[in-house]
Amino acid sequence: MNKPVIGNDIEELKQAIRDVPDFPKKGIIFKDITPLLSQPELFRKIIDLLADRYRSRKIDKIIAIEARGFILGAALAYRLRTGFVPIRKKNKLPWKVFSAAYALEYGQDSLEVHQDALQSHEKVLIIDDVLATGGTVSAVSELIGKLGAEVIEVACLIELTFLNGREKLGQTPVFSLIQY
Amino acid sequence: MNKPVIGNDIEELKQAIRDVPDFPKKGIIFKDITPLLSQPELFRKIIDLLADRYRSRKIDKIIAIEARGFILGAALAYRLRTGFVPIRKKNKLPWKVFSAAYALEYGQDSLEVHQDALQSHEKVLIIDDVLATGGTVSAVSELIGKLGAEVIEVACLIELTFLNGREKLGQTPVFSLIQY
Repeated sequence: MNKPVIGNDIEELKQAIRDVPDFPKKGIIFKDITPLLSQPELFRKIIDLLADRYRSRKIDKIIAIEARGFILGAALAYRLRTGFVPIRKKNKLPWKVFSAAYALEYGQDSLEVHQDALQSHEKVLIIDDVLATGGTVSAVSELIGKLGAEVIEVACLIELTFLNGREKLGQTPVFSLIQY
Repeated sequence: MNKPVIGNDIEELKQAIRDVPDFPKKGIIFKDITPLLSQPELFRKIIDLLADRYRSRKIDKIIAIEARGFILGAALAYRLRTGFVPIRKKNKLPWKVFSAAYALEYGQDSLEVHQDALQSHEKVLIIDDVLATGGTVSAVSELIGKLGAEVIEVACLIELTFLNGREKLGQTPVFSLIQY
């Protein structure tokens, strides 16, 4: 089910992504999606392709990860008429939070969600721009578990398959529009 | 023109905003919009009210300020079928950038935009969640000026009128859905 139905659309999206060498550090090739977002018809295509996949599923909330995840998550929440829940970096959310740590290359950081962001048994879709090692998404899953809600799937625009992020997510289904 | 036409809608939005005292520091009452975003019909109402205002204007790109601005900006860009351009904090954008400094309480920080984010003479709408002192929006206006594009208006969900942000923005029109 992860094979895009419309190969030409995906190819068009891929061609608008810019490779930036040595960002954020030497040896990394960063996939820059800003040229894709700035073209109205391509930005729309991403959201519509995701909406096509999820329109018949029961989804109460879109859970989006700061900061690029907000871009895709908010447009999709609007399109699917669901609520929007932001997952933020430490000390950004003003009210009572749950936190989950995730590993950085050196040390760790944490992600937070408001304690009243979800009701138990709500069904949610997690969205981010890129699935890499799966570390952040895995921390987000943990947060959603604390709130008693159910992750029906993780959706991302780009999946870096060579980093095996899916494995880290265990049973949680993962969908990506573009794979490298 | 800044008077909301539909007062009941605005009242409903206002009631969903949570006051959080002493965030981010003692003495500040933070306007928390997460309860508003998490309710599908209210999130949708914000975007539709903004779309009503701008649907007949020529807008090429929505310019959204990290991070909460991304949420409103992306949904509105989808709704209005415009491109989406992120303004990010220092060192977050991977490619060549223009930077503009803005004052913090102690010291300063800077915002960045990709140098190819806009074509000269494009018409843009700047969007953020809250207009406070106008410092960040003013830095964003400066960036857009460097790219040769034209800001047709600044739109925000909440305007803290007692901080006089509008004055800092000079000739640039400002629209807000909710005023405190």
